[in-house]
Amino acid sequence: MANTPRILLDTASHVEFCPGEMVSPTLSKSSGQPVWKARWWTLRGGVSEGVQVVELANELLEIRILPTRGMGLWNGRCGSLELGWHSPVANPVHPAYVNLQDRGGLGWLHGFQELLCRCGLAFNGPPGQDGGDTLTLHGRIANLPAHKLSLTVDPSPGGALELSGEVDEASMFGPRWRLKSTTRLESGEPTIHLVDEVTNLGGQPVPLSLLYHINVGRPFLEAGAKWEAPIRELAPRDPRAAEGMDEVFTYRGPEPGYQEQAYFAELHPDDTGWTTALLTNSSEAAAFCLNYQARTMPCFTVWKNTTAEADGYVTGLEPGTNYPNLRPYERAHGRLPSIPPGGTYRTEFSITIGDGREAVAALRERVSRLQRKAPPLLNMYPKAGWSPCADSNA
Amino acid sequence: MANTPRILLDTASHVEFCPGEMVSPTLSKSSGQPVWKARWWTLRGGVSEGVQVVELANELLEIRILPTRGMGLWNGRCGSLELGWHSPVANPVHPAYVNLQDRGGLGWLHGFQELLCRCGLAFNGPPGQDGGDTLTLHGRIANLPAHKLSLTVDPSPGGALELSGEVDEASMFGPRWRLKSTTRLESGEPTIHLVDEVTNLGGQPVPLSLLYHINVGRPFLEAGAKWEAPIRELAPRDPRAAEGMDEVFTYRGPEPGYQEQAYFAELHPDDTGWTTALLTNSSEAAAFCLNYQARTMPCFTVWKNTTAEADGYVTGLEPGTNYPNLRPYERAHGRLPSIPPGGTYRTEFSITIGDGREAVAALRERVSRLQRKAPPLLNMYPKAGWSPCADSNA
Amino acid sequence: MANTPRILLDTASHVEFCPGEMVSPTLSKSSGQPVWKARWWTLRGGVSEGVQVVELANELLEIRILPTRGMGLWNGRCGSLELGWHSPVANPVHPAYVNLQDRGGLGWLHGFQELLCRCGLAFNGPPGQDGGDTLTLHGRIANLPAHKLSLTVDPSPGGALELSGEVDEASMFGPRWRLKSTTRLESGEPTIHLVDEVTNLGGQPVPLSLLYHINVGRPFLEAGAKWEAPIRELAPRDPRAAEGMDEVFTYRGPEPGYQEQAYFAELHPDDTGWTTALLTNSSEAAAFCLNYQARTMPCFTVWKNTTAEADGYVTGLEPGTNYPNLRPYERAHGRLPSIPPGGTYRTEFSITIGDGREAVAALRERVSRLQRKAPPLLNMYPKAGWSPCADSNA
Repeated sequence: MANTPRILLDTASHVEFCPGEMVSPTLSKSSGQPVWKARWWTLRGGVSEGVQVVELANELLEIRILPTRGMGLWNGRCGSLELGWHSPVANPVHPAYVNLQDRGGLGWLHGFQELLCRCGLAFNGPPGQDGGDTLTLHGRIANLPAHKLSLTVDPSPGGALELSGEVDEASMFGPRWRLKSTTRLESGEPTIHLVDEVTNLGGQPVPLSLLYHINVGRPFLEAGAKWEAPIRELAPRDPRAAEGMDEVFTYRGPEPGYQEQAYFAELHPDDTGWTTALLTNSSEAAAFCLNYQARTMPCFTVWKNTTAEADGYVTGLEPGTNYPNLRPYERAHGRLPSIPPGGTYRTEFSITIGDGREAVAALRERVSRLQRKAPPLLNMYPKAGWSPCADSNA
Repeated sequence: MANTPRILLDTASHVEFCPGEMVSPTLSKSSGQPVWKARWWTLRGGVSEGVQVVELANELLEIRILPTRGMGLWNGRCGSLELGWHSPVANPVHPAYVNLQDRGGLGWLHGFQELLCRCGLAFNGPPGQDGGDTLTLHGRIANLPAHKLSLTVDPSPGGALELSGEVDEASMFGPRWRLKSTTRLESGEPTIHLVDEVTNLGGQPVPLSLLYHINVGRPFLEAGAKWEAPIRELAPRDPRAAEGMDEVFTYRGPEPGYQEQAYFAELHPDDTGWTTALLTNSSEAAAFCLNYQARTMPCFTVWKNTTAEADGYVTGLEPGTNYPNLRPYERAHGRLPSIPPGGTYRTEFSITIGDGREAVAALRERVSRLQRKAPPLLNMYPKAGWSPCADSNA
Repeated sequence: MANTPRILLDTASHVEFCPGEMVSPTLSKSSGQPVWKARWWTLRGGVSEGVQVVELANELLEIRILPTRGMGLWNGRCGSLELGWHSPVANPVHPAYVNLQDRGGLGWLHGFQELLCRCGLAFNGPPGQDGGDTLTLHGRIANLPAHKLSLTVDPSPGGALELSGEVDEASMFGPRWRLKSTTRLESGEPTIHLVDEVTNLGGQPVPLSLLYHINVGRPFLEAGAKWEAPIRELAPRDPRAAEGMDEVFTYRGPEPGYQEQAYFAELHPDDTGWTTALLTNSSEAAAFCLNYQARTMPCFTVWKNTTAEADGYVTGLEPGTNYPNLRPYERAHGRLPSIPPGGTYRTEFSITIGDGREAVAALRERVSRLQRKAPPLLNMYPKAGWSPCADSNA
């Protein structure tokens, strides 16, 4: 058995996506279960009709990927810890049921329910106008399907399981992006590795807007949970977020009618350019940890939405090329990398689950170590250059 | 054979909708045919590709339900009497082909062709703005698919055939409705029973807009046909409808270029809270009769659209929580019931077909009896509080 | 074996589209290959999921038709000559992924990648308002699927292979069009014949907007290629096109950032009412030739888009009922034929490939002969009555 990828789907070579699975021949010494497993199937019924799912699992963790929704991560599990949240949108939504123009350009919210969805690639942030371009909330990529999917297994001890998918976001007289996204599990690790390569297939340089909307609910999020990151500088997005600066790092329990709060931040990287952000539950026994390349994702947004459980009790940890403001603002502030014709922008990050006090303490120590570089600069009000409301107040 | 429901579709438990049928083992003494029958299949080709159909039939009547279109009723037949109408939209339209934003928010009309479709749940009425909300004609529910479908058979003599379906209308930062709709045929009755339970799955109270657009054409509708109901008060919707007050209860034959007319009314209920409206053909030999709970559907709209056959010769009998005006107007007039978190709004009604002069006379008598409570109050002009045009004229 | 059509798809009679093929029992004397072949299949994956394809081939030429996209022609081949172009949109796009309201009404461009797509039927041209109607770029027909498809084979020597498809463009309170489109290959000809019959199924006369967006790239288009037609009168569409009047008939190689140029023209018909337009490569060894009925398609548009290869290096030869201006302008200038209830508008044209200098010379001679009627009248600036910018300048 070799590392040859198995093609699960390919429009060009007429490979249709059909349910299947691959299971490790090796059994775990501890559990007696296969040490890795991949399964794939198509959801049926309701707004999920036709949504493809690929599940990858190792001994510690399982994760479900949605090729039909821009290679987003639906949800997962690490031991008894659920990865994801409970959106008012109960099931993954086929893009045919997401009209981005609905709700005055907020139609993206009809399909928002994943652990991880990408915002971009031509634009993210709120709906609005950018010259002649009409922008809708968070762009098209999360509602575009993969045309090619391949699964690679390295069956050696310490091997890995890897799914790659290609998604095109293209239009005539518009940007022509190709996202190649790879999700990898390595043997024995409670970690999901992600590498994205975004290529400009067009003939002109184009600015890229790419943000990872990573959304976490219980059991990590709860009253008394907190988020941590090695902050260089932080500011509330708007007056509503400024109200919460006294408890910016902690979370409340669910409150019906709670209005969302968002914070923008720059983080300290380590010597290799990587940084860490994590969400820890109140007892410090469970942590959801994000490690990522700060160079390619210099902007970090935290989204607090501790509303009623039924309305989507969730927080977002969101690294990106930019802050999720309207594109002309981000462009004016130089936060949209220009990708030349044929050029590729590569991002890399991982999600690690800390299960138990020791594991959590080790993850927190990494944040503390980076924070020792300098104390965090906390702005109590929105910051000019980061938030349009602060500029217009100036 | 028991009353255990047969699951035809369920996203959660991975039951895929596949063609099938169930046929009564008992044959009719009169016809030699099975006394009941259920069949289900998927339409293929054109804009109908992927639309699921479930047909229920007893000895007298058959009806086709469209799970893919919000559990609407496509059409049916009672003896030789066709139930439904001939829309310019020839076949049931998959929601993927209905862009609600088309035609300046009138895109719902791309899919309008059923005997019964629901308007709502977050809003119905014309397109327009309600604060920050952009409303499209008649809301989303008619273009959302069921994620769960179950069929129950009571095979005893006098038994019933029942289809239940669940449809979610949800969005992040928006209302989160679940419609559970049950369509039932009872043995030996020329009647379709419907029960809808609409539940607010969200964490905040939300106003409900729910109207049943029940659309009837030939052979009930024709020159000289009339509608009847025990009217407490009636008013034309607008000046165009006011032009027709002299012949408000009767219908003309098809007229190319006819402009639609709509009338709003409150009906008298009986002691159990039910009321009746019916459409009778010119010879009084065929009637389409609606019985419904007036308490939960206090607003009754009649829609006359006696245009050319080719453009959709049809009339609508439309009970609802509200009149189909723009939502802020209906809210201001207290016509939108507020559903608390977890609360359910239940509506119940039936469609009975009168086939032959005797049957028709019996149905008409029920209306007359209720009308005896008080003579109808007929406004010749739009009424303030019911029609925005009347308020602004005041 | 007779001429009975084989039904490949029919919603009404429950014939589902399934992959298949028909191959001539007769082999070519020259090539040893079957003298004709038809194959049909469904694309899978990405935005092409569910797009139906029918391929017709004779000994000289093959062409792929897209029933799911309004019977458009995807692409083809004639010997070594590729028919089509390379759009930034890589693969045929299922209409579920084309939101016509995207990009401020330019969403049609999300799906634009065919050799031939129809613009219409209720409107074509740019997005905008026409009284109460909200128009989107180039209308709905290219993103509506066929509900009926039939394939006819005439197996005799000199026989033909013919695909007919029916597509409805309908809406309640809107026009109700049926397009019946037939694509035919005749034995031994390097020619694709097309006949369209557009019927008004509604009850009122309706103006028709129908334009054929025929898009050609390499090897016909290249630096030094030229287009030719027997011009009565020609004018640039706008100031940008006027800049190119000095080289109106020739093409440049790809230029990144090139802004499109369009020219409007009336052509001379021959005695039977047909005319010819062709695109010839620089060495005059390959020509893409369009023959069409000028009476039913009196308006001819040439679209030059010699941008970077990666952005869609292409030119359009576009006969139509009208110029692709906003509908009220075309109506005001009397260019939209009014189709009575039940009336049919029939267009007929063919695409012939000239492969080799001799064949090309013969095709060019036809243009020259028609041009001898009168020298072309070339307007150097946009013409009042053809271009809104010229009227408003007047």
